[in-house]
Amino acid sequence: MPASRNSLRAAGWGGGDQVGDRGESALLFDLVALAGSTAGAAEVGPGDDAAGWRPTPGSLVLWSTDGLCEGTDFRRQYQRPYQVGWKAWMAAVSDLAAMGAVPRGGLLAAALPGSTSALALHAIQLGVVEAAAVDGAAVMGGDLSRIDGPLSLNVTVMGEVTDGPVVRLGGGSAGDWLVVTGSLGLAAAALHQLEEGMAPLPPEWRQRLLEPPSRVSAGVALRAAGATAMTDLSDGLLLDLGRLCASSRVGAEIWLDRLPIGQGLGATGKGEELALVGGEDFELLAAFPERLVAGLVSGWPGELPPVAVIGQLTAHAGTRLLRDRGGDPVDPPARAGFRHF
Amino acid sequence: MPASRNSLRAAGWGGGDQVGDRGESALLFDLVALAGSTAGAAEVGPGDDAAGWRPTPGSLVLWSTDGLCEGTDFRRQYQRPYQVGWKAWMAAVSDLAAMGAVPRGGLLAAALPGSTSALALHAIQLGVVEAAAVDGAAVMGGDLSRIDGPLSLNVTVMGEVTDGPVVRLGGGSAGDWLVVTGSLGLAAAALHQLEEGMAPLPPEWRQRLLEPPSRVSAGVALRAAGATAMTDLSDGLLLDLGRLCASSRVGAEIWLDRLPIGQGLGATGKGEELALVGGEDFELLAAFPERLVAGLVSGWPGELPPVAVIGQLTAHAGTRLLRDRGGDPVDPPARAGFRHF
Repeated sequence: MPASRNSLRAAGWGGGDQVGDRGESALLFDLVALAGSTAGAAEVGPGDDAAGWRPTPGSLVLWSTDGLCEGTDFRRQYQRPYQVGWKAWMAAVSDLAAMGAVPRGGLLAAALPGSTSALALHAIQLGVVEAAAVDGAAVMGGDLSRIDGPLSLNVTVMGEVTDGPVVRLGGGSAGDWLVVTGSLGLAAAALHQLEEGMAPLPPEWRQRLLEPPSRVSAGVALRAAGATAMTDLSDGLLLDLGRLCASSRVGAEIWLDRLPIGQGLGATGKGEELALVGGEDFELLAAFPERLVAGLVSGWPGELPPVAVIGQLTAHAGTRLLRDRGGDPVDPPARAGFRHF
Repeated sequence: MPASRNSLRAAGWGGGDQVGDRGESALLFDLVALAGSTAGAAEVGPGDDAAGWRPTPGSLVLWSTDGLCEGTDFRRQYQRPYQVGWKAWMAAVSDLAAMGAVPRGGLLAAALPGSTSALALHAIQLGVVEAAAVDGAAVMGGDLSRIDGPLSLNVTVMGEVTDGPVVRLGGGSAGDWLVVTGSLGLAAAALHQLEEGMAPLPPEWRQRLLEPPSRVSAGVALRAAGATAMTDLSDGLLLDLGRLCASSRVGAEIWLDRLPIGQGLGATGKGEELALVGGEDFELLAAFPERLVAGLVSGWPGELPPVAVIGQLTAHAGTRLLRDRGGDPVDPPARAGFRHF
């Protein structure tokens, strides 16, 4: 490794050798070195044709893949390479958290313009490795290819559930209560402010967008508490709730006074809208039978992000917004959430 | 699904709706429909947050990811979408074959320009699904994102080894004999001819480049026969052999008269060079202790691609080319093989 971990965390996009000046094997070997300290779960680690690990006998193995493209999903002007790697992992692992699974490992595929700085690649790799380590997962391997276009990353994550069933997207029933973790809207608010060039950006907003936290432990706890359906909020509450409802063949109502709107968003006058349609929160949305909700809330571990009841699944289709429980209906925002297509 | 499987196999890049005109969910649901018939191995299939399957208890799970970018790794002018999907799978699964693993499933991530035809996306998806089905594997899920650049695919494959150790890249010893499957050089010859606009292209050459066969069964047989080291020939024999040697801390000699040069390449006068440095053969290279070689060759199943002994691992570093076993050394080709960087 040519640079210390501290300097990689702070590194920008330029400087030093370009990847085109280095050998492909050398670049992959750097991943071996970076992953070395955390690759404990891998029986076959980076550097072989494929990576290998041994799941707990009988467990269900869960896996998911997630792409991040420069220009669409991140911008060099306000994201450092380390942060892009970190977020690539967190966005991918969010799909495992949404099933209550424990992540064990990941693979990082990068398509790089030839002009990419080798330092920036190492910083991306370290961001992925350190984000994975938050939940004890190991980066087990990867792939490098050249692209005549924007830098593009793909993180595939794998985890397992060793006991009992996973929480599916379509397991909800009419009458189940809806619960979300943490707070909503900060990442979207930060993105809006950065795109518009507005300053200053509160540090908590910036962090939620650029270095989002893991919700893996919360997902495990929600599964253990008896969630019937769950998903992660990557494209905005209304859009992701709509998918959970479609898959569960139910509708929903949201009680707007219960939304855990991110701190400081009230002052913008857009807190409610950002909480409903702002993407990239990576919080979890889960459904619970009413009889389990009191126990969930009272028994929820203090070290996890708080849970809030925000509404209920309903027998009639579609999502209705109510001012409060049993209150007046409110028109939905014009924009539904983030869609690639 | 808007189109029959036959019409998707033949579909080109244009025509019909663009992906930008369709909903993202609709596009992913098409993958659900395409994968439906072969998704038997998945306990949680496409459409949920993550896919799930239950490995054989105690087995080692192997996985690998591989990227294909338009312009670098394929061209629309001579590859149909179905063929690009097929090849994306075969290139990825080749890394599992190289460890003697049996593939169980895959994930397809696609980064698409907004102008991509939805038909072309479906054709790519079907190519991946049908290539996976060759070895009984299931496409269990995927991801779609938008790219402001070339179409870019990432296939992650997963498989398992249920009995005994996998074959590692670095398990070879000086004195081991080197064996390759099938024939070498046809894909590179076809690529050269297509890039130069030369015609006519023999059908077998074209197929090796555009719809390469699976070597999974051969990899399983080589592992069962006692291979000590193995890799797949994706970047050319000399380059891939060099990696096996570096990892095994040995050198090698190749007996040129034993190379299984692809049919019809002799007439080009470049058969030997293409066999040594031509990439994308996706054949397997394995090392065997001398005592096992006679049994390997005599007991090799007739339905698998033939195996040929092509040289030996040596105690002295580097790769030497010999005219024949014990014969005169020959200078290596100027170009070593395919490198992205």
